[in-house]
Amino acid sequence: MDIQLDEHRLRSTFERYSEIGGTEDGGLHRLALSDADKKTRDTLISDLEAVNASVRIDRVGNIFGRREGTDPDADPILIGSHLDSQPYGGRYDGQLGVIAALETLRTFEEEGIETRHPIELVNWTNEEGARFDLAPLGVGVFTGKYSLDEALSSTDDNGTTVKEELERIEYDGTEPCEPFDIDSYLELHIEQGPELERRGTNVGIVTGIVGLSWLNATFQGEADHAGTTPMYDRKDAMVAASRGIGNANTIPAKLPSDTVITAGEVTVQPNSTNIIPGEVVCKFDIRSYDDDARNEAVSRLKEELTIAADREDVDVTFEEVYHTSSSTFSPRIRKAIQRSAQDREYSATEMVSKAGHDAMYMIDVTDAGMVFVPSVDGKSHSEDEFTRWEDVVAGTEVFARTVHELATK
Amino acid sequence: MDIQLDEHRLRSTFERYSEIGGTEDGGLHRLALSDADKKTRDTLISDLEAVNASVRIDRVGNIFGRREGTDPDADPILIGSHLDSQPYGGRYDGQLGVIAALETLRTFEEEGIETRHPIELVNWTNEEGARFDLAPLGVGVFTGKYSLDEALSSTDDNGTTVKEELERIEYDGTEPCEPFDIDSYLELHIEQGPELERRGTNVGIVTGIVGLSWLNATFQGEADHAGTTPMYDRKDAMVAASRGIGNANTIPAKLPSDTVITAGEVTVQPNSTNIIPGEVVCKFDIRSYDDDARNEAVSRLKEELTIAADREDVDVTFEEVYHTSSSTFSPRIRKAIQRSAQDREYSATEMVSKAGHDAMYMIDVTDAGMVFVPSVDGKSHSEDEFTRWEDVVAGTEVFARTVHELATK
Repeated sequence: MDIQLDEHRLRSTFERYSEIGGTEDGGLHRLALSDADKKTRDTLISDLEAVNASVRIDRVGNIFGRREGTDPDADPILIGSHLDSQPYGGRYDGQLGVIAALETLRTFEEEGIETRHPIELVNWTNEEGARFDLAPLGVGVFTGKYSLDEALSSTDDNGTTVKEELERIEYDGTEPCEPFDIDSYLELHIEQGPELERRGTNVGIVTGIVGLSWLNATFQGEADHAGTTPMYDRKDAMVAASRGIGNANTIPAKLPSDTVITAGEVTVQPNSTNIIPGEVVCKFDIRSYDDDARNEAVSRLKEELTIAADREDVDVTFEEVYHTSSSTFSPRIRKAIQRSAQDREYSATEMVSKAGHDAMYMIDVTDAGMVFVPSVDGKSHSEDEFTRWEDVVAGTEVFARTVHELATK
Repeated sequence: MDIQLDEHRLRSTFERYSEIGGTEDGGLHRLALSDADKKTRDTLISDLEAVNASVRIDRVGNIFGRREGTDPDADPILIGSHLDSQPYGGRYDGQLGVIAALETLRTFEEEGIETRHPIELVNWTNEEGARFDLAPLGVGVFTGKYSLDEALSSTDDNGTTVKEELERIEYDGTEPCEPFDIDSYLELHIEQGPELERRGTNVGIVTGIVGLSWLNATFQGEADHAGTTPMYDRKDAMVAASRGIGNANTIPAKLPSDTVITAGEVTVQPNSTNIIPGEVVCKFDIRSYDDDARNEAVSRLKEELTIAADREDVDVTFEEVYHTSSSTFSPRIRKAIQRSAQDREYSATEMVSKAGHDAMYMIDVTDAGMVFVPSVDGKSHSEDEFTRWEDVVAGTEVFARTVHELATK
């Protein structure tokens, strides 16, 4: 079956959505449950109704738009992503996945394509967690990661709750937010990293999502006068932390995987030019698709930091604040994506997602998969985020064909 | 001539002064021109009048108490230090030098000791700069480092000016704040470092004060997603800064002097656990008594930081915000201190001050010198600051004898 996207409509839809909360610098500022988010949600519902999809809103504002299939016993294919953005983020992150899903429904409707399975478009609430800390909120409640009460009482910086905002923008739906029988879940997303662009590949078939550990290291030395304390007599927490960070940076190269280690947050006390730092807290982010490699990285990181601390007569203590194992997407869906790319002669490669996505949580309730499109220079969570138009088209075509295959089987 | 201190009076005076602004944890919280500072100043003036000294207050609140000599043509010996403290600082820093000077005058008066030269006790205003940024303010105006207007209009965090506070506590004196003919300046101070205590030496004869450079290094990399950016593709400003700080720490060992280098203030942007740091600003403090070594240290520091930045594909720029050359105290006064220590059979050693003092500025207008007493564990600018009583007595005796020698010659 030949599925022909209307490239012009895809583009104008993308531009229409991008204007809602669009910034002067080409980005998007559309925080979850804000007025801009409401306006985009309204637009989406109107677009869903225009293709005769029936719309449901659940208790946390997740939007579902259902196009029926021919078999009343077949479970739906769920497709979508999120419409909320980072503060002054990019136009592609999240939104592109919802628009690709919408264009899929429109194309099927326009070309009179019937599918055995129903297809449901979903827009998940507050994926970014940029406004409300609990993230990804919508898919998190749906898959049982968070309770409904926890989600509704989550607050933004002004103390406004999710519940209040859902009511205010009239997205406090009545459908239960819980898993139903779903055949499969498919999401299109920008890569947010540079790999596809570097390789000149059109489409990424996401095999899974990396595991993540957050390790906080507190170096406790002694604050002292920077003039009167000889070098031999110092317990300089910053020198210890610095040597630790320098050595930590060499660990990934020694591991048989694509492990990454980042010291993103470093806080120095008392942080005054002429006082030797007495305490430094470093917050490390460690990721790998290989859980063994990640555990090994955390263990080597602690070793390196301890050696660095000992060398400077400084104490170091660790707190493992968070970790998740890597997750693997369904081979059935990966193969479907692969076939769709081959049919259209697009280059495709299997790859791991280094960032979390709504799809990652869906693994617990159904077969899930993701299609990635390239990000120029790997930029994301910034107004510079950019995906070339031909890559958007290619990705959306592969996505629509994959949905068709899943929905007709 | 045998000069016998009244140890009991010295101790009770120290305790009486320490109660004004004294903290529960044994420290001192007596910011310049505060109510506590006024009360200590009033106490000092009353104590000066009790030994028949004539008191003058100059335009920035510096207090002078003069005991006449026998020769009307002889220039005065100026002795003293400062009564203001750091916030929750120690009881010794500054105050001990004023009390040693007061006890010297008292002893001479009590024992009927006449001197050819007049002796003037001085209490300098706002040496610490903890309340008003312009520091050392009193001696700075006196020696022409700052203008009177600049000093009077200097503000604290609440926007209150030095002028307003001088008027409020009634220390807006009428004497001009400018150098007069002075034979010599002598100051007793705690070492604030660990050297004398380590060596078990009673008294430090300060040869001079280290030179100081402040170098700000800004590492400019690229903020990026800590998950999606491969290690090979990062421009991590924190890794660059860390390698730089680690290598900087090894520079002093390669220089023929007691140079010290400290990265005391480090600021990271955006400072979020899962974002690769895009910018890091490190503020370095470099000190040495050997100006060539200090210049060499600054130059090597820039080299090491540049190498570290280059290695991480990060840019680094430098700003040399401040530097002073080392200063040397008068050999005449150093010898006088040496003789006084020998006479009383106290151990004494020549040493460099790694911190700045009022005396450092007096070099420009007269022969100056300093007597150091040991600091336990080198603690200073903290409530833990402590000097053993026998060391206070020894230092004050050496100080008083030195004043006598200078004043009788």
